[in-house]
Formats: sequence, C-alpha cells, structure tokens
Amino acid sequence: MTAPTLTAFIEFASTYSYLAAMRLEDEAARAGVAIRWRPFLLGPIFKAQGWETSPFNLYPAKGANMWRDMARRCAARSLPLTRPPAFPVHSLLAARATTAVEDDGDRGRASRALFHAAFGEGRDIADAVVVTAALDGAGLDGTALVTRAADTDVKAALRQATEDAISHGVYGAPSFVTDDGELFWGDDRMEDALAWANGTAVRPA
Amino acid sequence: MTAPTLTAFIEFASTYSYLAAMRLEDEAARAGVAIRWRPFLLGPIFKAQGWETSPFNLYPAKGANMWRDMARRCAARSLPLTRPPAFPVHSLLAARATTAVEDDGDRGRASRALFHAAFGEGRDIADAVVVTAALDGAGLDGTALVTRAADTDVKAALRQATEDAISHGVYGAPSFVTDDGELFWGDDRMEDALAWANGTAVRPA
Repeated sequence: MTAPTLTAFIEFASTYSYLAAMRLEDEAARAGVAIRWRPFLLGPIFKAQGWETSPFNLYPAKGANMWRDMARRCAARSLPLTRPPAFPVHSLLAARATTAVEDDGDRGRASRALFHAAFGEGRDIADAVVVTAALDGAGLDGTALVTRAADTDVKAALRQATEDAISHGVYGAPSFVTDDGELFWGDDRMEDALAWANGTAVRPA
Repeated sequence: MTAPTLTAFIEFASTYSYLAAMRLEDEAARAGVAIRWRPFLLGPIFKAQGWETSPFNLYPAKGANMWRDMARRCAARSLPLTRPPAFPVHSLLAARATTAVEDDGDRGRASRALFHAAFGEGRDIADAVVVTAALDGAGLDGTALVTRAADTDVKAALRQATEDAISHGVYGAPSFVTDDGELFWGDDRMEDALAWANGTAVRPA
C-alpha cells in the first residue's frame, strides 16, 4: 500500500513556513505520510486581493505580534531566529531554485537550508551567492540549481504551483492539501493535516 | 499567594472566540490561572484599518477555509456548529450585556451561553429576546442584564475594554494578555498564554 501524501505549499518569504518546514519531515514520518514539497509565491495571491506587501507590514499591530510570536515559538522549539534584511523576503530565486530540485526528499532538504539561511541566519536569499551556498551546504549542487532556476520550464513549473495553490483555495502559507483535497492553513494546522491524511482525524458530519 | 490572571479579550462576532470560550475555564483551571473575561468590539479596530466588515467576508478564500476549519475543530471537540443568520454577528448587545455582569465566573458563564446561542444554535444574538433567554438559561437575570446593557456606564465600560485591547496591541479575537503584558492571539495560542501566565513557558532570550 502506498503511503498517503500531503502537499505542502511553502513560501520562502513566510515566517510560519519557516516554522513548519523545520519540523515537517519529522512529523510526517511519525504520521506515516509522504510530503510533496511545493514552493509557490504568495505575492500574486496577495496582489489579486489588493495587497502590495505582506499583511504583517500593512497591519502593524498584527506584524508586531507575529514577530513576538515567532520569537516565542522559536525559543520553545530551540530554533534560531534572525530577522532578514528586508521583509517580506524577496523569495523568487529561492522558490525557483527549489522548484528545480526533482526529488522530494532533496527538495525538503533544500527548503530547510534556505529557510534556515533566511530566518535562522537573517541572510538575503534574493542573493544567488547565498542561495548557492545554502544549497551546497544541504549536499546539493547549488551552482547547477541556481542556473536551472532561470530556465523557462522551471519558471513555468513555479507559476503552475501557484496556480495549483489558488485552485485548492490557498490564501496564505504554509498550506497543506491532502490527497482528497482538504485544505489546512498554517503551521498550527500541520498536525490536523497529517491526521486527515492518514485517516485518524475526526471528520465533520 | 494570588493566582496569576489572564485577561481574555473576546468578541461575540468571532468564531474562534466561540472555540476558545467553550474551553477556557477548564484549561485555565488546569493551569492554575484565573480568567478575566473582557468582552470587546473588533468593529472599531477593523474600521480603523480600513475594513468595513470581517476579513472572512473581505477575503472569500480565507472565509471559506475558516468555516471548514471551524467544522473540523468543532467535530473534533464535540461542539455544535450552526452558522448564525448573519455574519459577522451583530455583537453589540451581547457585549454590553456581558459587560454588565460583575462577577468574572458569572461573566464566563454568560459568555459561553451567548456563544452557544450564536454559533452552537445559530441564533441571532442581536435580538434581546435571544440574549435574555440565553442569560436566563445560564442562571443569570437576563431581563435585568439586557436592561443594564443600555446604561451609560455599561456602554462606557465596553468602550474602555476596546480601548484597553487596542493599548495592549490587540488586532483580532480572541486575544489573551498576561499580567506582564504579553499578548497572544487566537484559540491556537491559549495554551501558550496560560503557560506564560503560570510561569512554565520557555521565554525568548
């Protein structure tokens, strides 16, 4: 029998995608669920609803509490947290470079390396040097992936991932979609999403 | 030694305040924390940031997933869920009537009764008959409280609660504020807020 899968839509500009990415494989292994990593872009989704930047910048009280919440959660999970030089992070290159990674396990490793660079170390992942080094550090070929990131088919695959996210009803990141199309939003719903995927969730009537 | 307290800012129009209110006293008792129930109004806060209605109405994908998430969470917690006749619920009367309740334990009971009427039974809590019946059912004097709801000092106290919420950085509901001013947003952060209040939380450096 094939393991159930859970599609994880992650955005490298998203603080809560960082929280989720760093624990996703461990939680999924415990739940017996295989993860499909799908980098996508929230920018076009936010623009379509009239936001030119992150809601955490548009609504300062919400933004202030998000950073405080991140500090608390990272402390509780022993994760480093350093604010990147710009927020939202310009995530296009990271999204394309991870889209270029073909194996899902490798893509997860690449994603964690880039999230760690962006939010653990506060590096600028719009910089090809930073992305290359992070991917090299994850045991992948950073130079080749950064080169692949500029290819038409990789760009198209990333656009398609964003379209797929929209068609599943995604409006924020991280988001999780089960094989039967159930959508869960946020690091806070990872356990629910995995329980739905492996059939142990209580389902509404 | 006095028990630590946690101030719970609740909004009767808020679906996640319903989820939180129904379990708050039990969780707080387990954590050894006393709850101060503070009904407040999100409307003025949303208006100040340019929203004329709930973000769940403004952003349909977010709204659709919120209702689905509510259905899943209510099923998991064996809570009834019936959509109220209008959303957002017109919560002014309920907020004033519970503000008029003086004892915090009674105010919690009154709040649960009104949330149950609004989201468990889908009743219109803008209706004085509904509010009176719900408060009577909670063992309080519904008629007296609905009358008190129209008094100047009660109206002023509710306005003050909303001002206090804003001054603590509140931008959504439910929100929890500890004795030392730490703000937590959402039913999903109730455990964190209680752990902070009773001193068991890991604190950021």
